[in-house]
Parts: sequence; structure tokens; C-alpha cells
Amino acid sequence: MGPGANPTKKDLEDAYEIGKLIAQQGWVLLTGGRNAGVMEAASKGAKEAGGLTIGVLPGSERNNMSDHVDIPIITGMGSARNNINVLSSDVIVACGCGLGTASEIMLALKADKHVILLNQHQGLLNFLRELKLQNIHLCFSPESTLDAIMRLL
Amino acid sequence: MGPGANPTKKDLEDAYEIGKLIAQQGWVLLTGGRNAGVMEAASKGAKEAGGLTIGVLPGSERNNMSDHVDIPIITGMGSARNNINVLSSDVIVACGCGLGTASEIMLALKADKHVILLNQHQGLLNFLRELKLQNIHLCFSPESTLDAIMRLL
Amino acid sequence: MGPGANPTKKDLEDAYEIGKLIAQQGWVLLTGGRNAGVMEAASKGAKEAGGLTIGVLPGSERNNMSDHVDIPIITGMGSARNNINVLSSDVIVACGCGLGTASEIMLALKADKHVILLNQHQGLLNFLRELKLQNIHLCFSPESTLDAIMRLL
Amino acid sequence: MGPGANPTKKDLEDAYEIGKLIAQQGWVLLTGGRNAGVMEAASKGAKEAGGLTIGVLPGSERNNMSDHVDIPIITGMGSARNNINVLSSDVIVACGCGLGTASEIMLALKADKHVILLNQHQGLLNFLRELKLQNIHLCFSPESTLDAIMRLL
Repeated sequence: MGPGANPTKKDLEDAYEIGKLIAQQGWVLLTGGRNAGVMEAASKGAKEAGGLTIGVLPGSERNNMSDHVDIPIITGMGSARNNINVLSSDVIVACGCGLGTASEIMLALKADKHVILLNQHQGLLNFLRELKLQNIHLCFSPESTLDAIMRLL
Repeated sequence: MGPGANPTKKDLEDAYEIGKLIAQQGWVLLTGGRNAGVMEAASKGAKEAGGLTIGVLPGSERNNMSDHVDIPIITGMGSARNNINVLSSDVIVACGCGLGTASEIMLALKADKHVILLNQHQGLLNFLRELKLQNIHLCFSPESTLDAIMRLL
Repeated sequence: MGPGANPTKKDLEDAYEIGKLIAQQGWVLLTGGRNAGVMEAASKGAKEAGGLTIGVLPGSERNNMSDHVDIPIITGMGSARNNINVLSSDVIVACGCGLGTASEIMLALKADKHVILLNQHQGLLNFLRELKLQNIHLCFSPESTLDAIMRLL
Repeated sequence: MGPGANPTKKDLEDAYEIGKLIAQQGWVLLTGGRNAGVMEAASKGAKEAGGLTIGVLPGSERNNMSDHVDIPIITGMGSARNNINVLSSDVIVACGCGLGTASEIMLALKADKHVILLNQHQGLLNFLRELKLQNIHLCFSPESTLDAIMRLL
């Protein structure tokens, strides 16, 4: 998970690498499916490493879908689909942070999922630490993200 | 799509065969994902032919998932997930008919999707024919279902 | 519940009357909320009798809302909102029949709700009778619909 | 909006007062509808002032509904209903903060809604300020909350 709009350069680079590393493990990558920002970068990384990619789209059609998504799940339910993203994932990785991503972090923790955080705002981290310390995992690189996923699966 | 509860023996046999034929074409099978009825039979057929299976589950956890589903999409939204099933499918095949399946047929036709019908109740067919003739395709065997899908893709 | 598009003149007249009768009992009317067809007619009838009207809208904004809806519930989830309509209603009245209405009848019966049917296609009735006889109630006028609701509450 | 679990005493007192003030204006109160925490307190305040209360429930039945909800909207879609809460509200007031509430703040800002914040964590405020300054309104009492709603309507 990560911002579609206004990602940083580092968000995109990290997302691309994480997508790649996930695919190299033979794992399936699930994103929000759009051709924008972190979703696009992660899907591209996974496809270039020969992985399988799922995209859970907000719209009711395939427009705005990333070319790197193999299997679109077309929800037609806008941001309410964010809850499907987190329920369907074994581990959530939030790379960078927009409003949609922040909502997914909250929904994931509420559903007792483990969430790995990269490139997050310090204020958000302070907030989360108070609420749900044990399911939050801070990472600082794609490689340490991979290690964290492995420990959690 | 097809009944989870109270399928006929023919519904199950046809679903198993259709799952198999879909997989043999290299297509992805999407079902409602539960370990019951037509969903289970179709997923089993597809897996035994080496296919890839998606299950869009109504619950918020993996319980009741078919063992033959590769990728669970966990919606946590009950029967409202039926609309995701139809929006996400290129062609809908309704094999046998319960209430949930009938709702999917209606939602699919409303979304202007093509729907292939097998083993349906004559009354339902009469009703559908009046409403939306051009997107309805009657089939009477797994093989003719495969032909119909091919023509529609 | 009833067709937004292509209702018959009788569907509209009956919906208007049923909305009125519901309001006169002090009951709340819940519809799909759009300014079209049976939803519009029922909401208008209820408002003219001084009732309270809820509209569960498919879109993510208020456009296409009936002027006779007091309280819009804005779902942004398209036809998946049909399941909310039926879960939120104590008794479902289906007046006339389009694809969306038919999906609501199916979802309502699946959720074990009582459904009153007016002006339905004979084929659909034949189908429903086989599946779920005990929760289906045929009515032929707004007045008998009111009586049926009273018995069911 | 506000935490169902673990609200502070001040969250509950403020929510009760805000519910009351909203009802006294003749406005409709919409909450998440459960008999817990801030939802319960706000609904109670509104009812005691003679207001009308809507509860958009996560479950598929009425269990766990607040006794102070007049009109339950039963979504059966768990936390995905949070998006309906924010889309259906003219102004969102977040009083206190749990994970669900935080998700609603994010979804509301993403949908370009105005959000009034009371009793929020400083870290969360710092985060939000960077992302979406113009739609965020800090308040420190029920009375100033009422003033802010008036300016925004």
C-alpha cells in the first residue's frame, strides 16, 4: 500500500524493489491496482521479476488500471475497497503515506493485521505507537522489509 | 457462479467440467470462493487441470474457503460481494441457481455483462428473456459453454 | 424497491400509494433514493403524507437524488448497495421489477427477510415459489400491501 | 465519529454535548450506531434533546445497536462501512481517536469533506496538517464545534 498521488522518489524506488523481492519469493503481490504512484511501482517491480499481481480497483471498470496488474478485482466501491485490500493481505506493507494509505494502516491494525511501515511521517508513527504497538513494524529498506515479512508469515 | 447450498448432481458435474475447461485454456477462474456447492466443484476442476483460481469470499476471514482456491479476496461484506464477482469477471457463467446466484445474474446483466446460463429454472429464463435478451446465452453442456465463452471474449 | 428505469404506469401509481400508506402509519420509508421510477414515486407519496424518507444512494455524491428524500445515505458502492437496502428494511416491498429490483428480492430472501411482491413477472414468481415459499407474499393493491406489512411487523 | 472502545471521559462528555447541540439545531446526527463509546454518547445526547439519529452499523443484524439510534442502516460490511459514514455526512466531527475513527478522518479528507477535530493526538494532528490543511478544523469544546459546523454548512 502507498500513495497514488504525490509519492516521493524514495517511496517509488522502495516500492519497486519490494515488489521485486516479493515476486522473487514466489509470493503474490496485492495492491490497489491503479496506474499511479506506489501501486504502479510495486506492481511493475513484481512483474519484472516474474511475479503474480492482483489489483483491487476502486472503480467499476478497468480504466486507470496498472499495466502490471495480472488480475483485476473490480469492486466499484471507491475507497471502501481499502478494507478489502487489508483483509485480503497476509502482511500489509505501507510504503510512503497519503490519506488512503493512512486509512489502510488504520483498518489493518483494527483487523489485527501486522503492518510494516516505511517512509512514514513521524507524527503518524507517534500516534500509532500509542495505540497498537505490537503489530507495527518499522523498516528502513526493501531488504529489511523482506526480512520482516518472512518473520511474520 | 452457482448455488453453494442444494446444487443438483448435474450442477456439480457441469461446474467441475467447466472449471477444468477454463483452466485448460489458461484462463483464470473466479468464484465466490467457499468450500460448498458449485464454487467448490468449479475450483476443484480448475485446480486439477493446473489452473489459477480466485475466490471472492463473503466473510472477513478465511474460514469456509475452498481448498482449491489459490487467491482469496476477503471482502468482509457478505452478499454485497456478489457485485464484485460480476464486475471482476469477463464473462459470467451461472451453473444452477440459488438465490445468491440469481442475484449475481441480475447484477451482471445490470452491469451490461454477458451471462451464460446452464441448468436454470424455466421461469427465471422467461423473466430474463423479457428484460435483457441480447446478453443472455443459454448453454446445455460444459463444451458448449466453453465455445460460448470463446465467442464472447 | 422497484425499477428506476421503465416502470409501468401501474408500478408508479402503486408505489406512490404505498409510500403514502407507509407514511400514514408513522413508518419510515427506505428506498434506493434516486429521482427515478418507483423510488421517486414512493418517496413522493411518503413525503406528501408527511412521512420520513431515507434514500440509500449508489453514487458517491448527491446527484440524481430524489427531491423527496429526507436523509440520503451515500454509499459510493453502486449496485452493491442493494444489499444494504434489504438488510436495513424490516419488510421489503418489491413493486414492479427490473434487474436491480430482482437482485434485491434475491438478496432479501437470502437474508431471510420477508418480501411482498406486486406487479411481478409470472416467470419470476414461479422461480421464487420453488426456492423460498414461506417468506414470499403476493399482493395486488397498495391496501393489501399495507395489511401484509402489518401482519409481518 | 469517535472511538467505540477506550474513549476518555472527556471524549464521552464532549460527544454527549455535541449530540445535544446538533439535535437542538434540528440537524440529523449520523454515527456508527453501536452501543459503545462516543457513538453511544453522541446518540444519547441527541435523543435527549429530541433529535433524530441515524446509525450506520457494521454488522448484518441489529445486535450491538445503541438504544438511542432511531434509524439503523445495516450494512453487513464491517469497517468498510466507515466510508459510508463520511460520504453521508455534511460535516464530520471526530471526537477522540481510535483506529476506526482515524480511518474515518482519512477517508473523509480524501473525499474532500470538512473534518472537525476534538481531543486528538498531537502526532496525528501534525501528520494531517502536512497533508490537508484547509479542510481541517481544530476545536476545543462542544460550543466551538457547533460554531464551526455552522460556518461550514
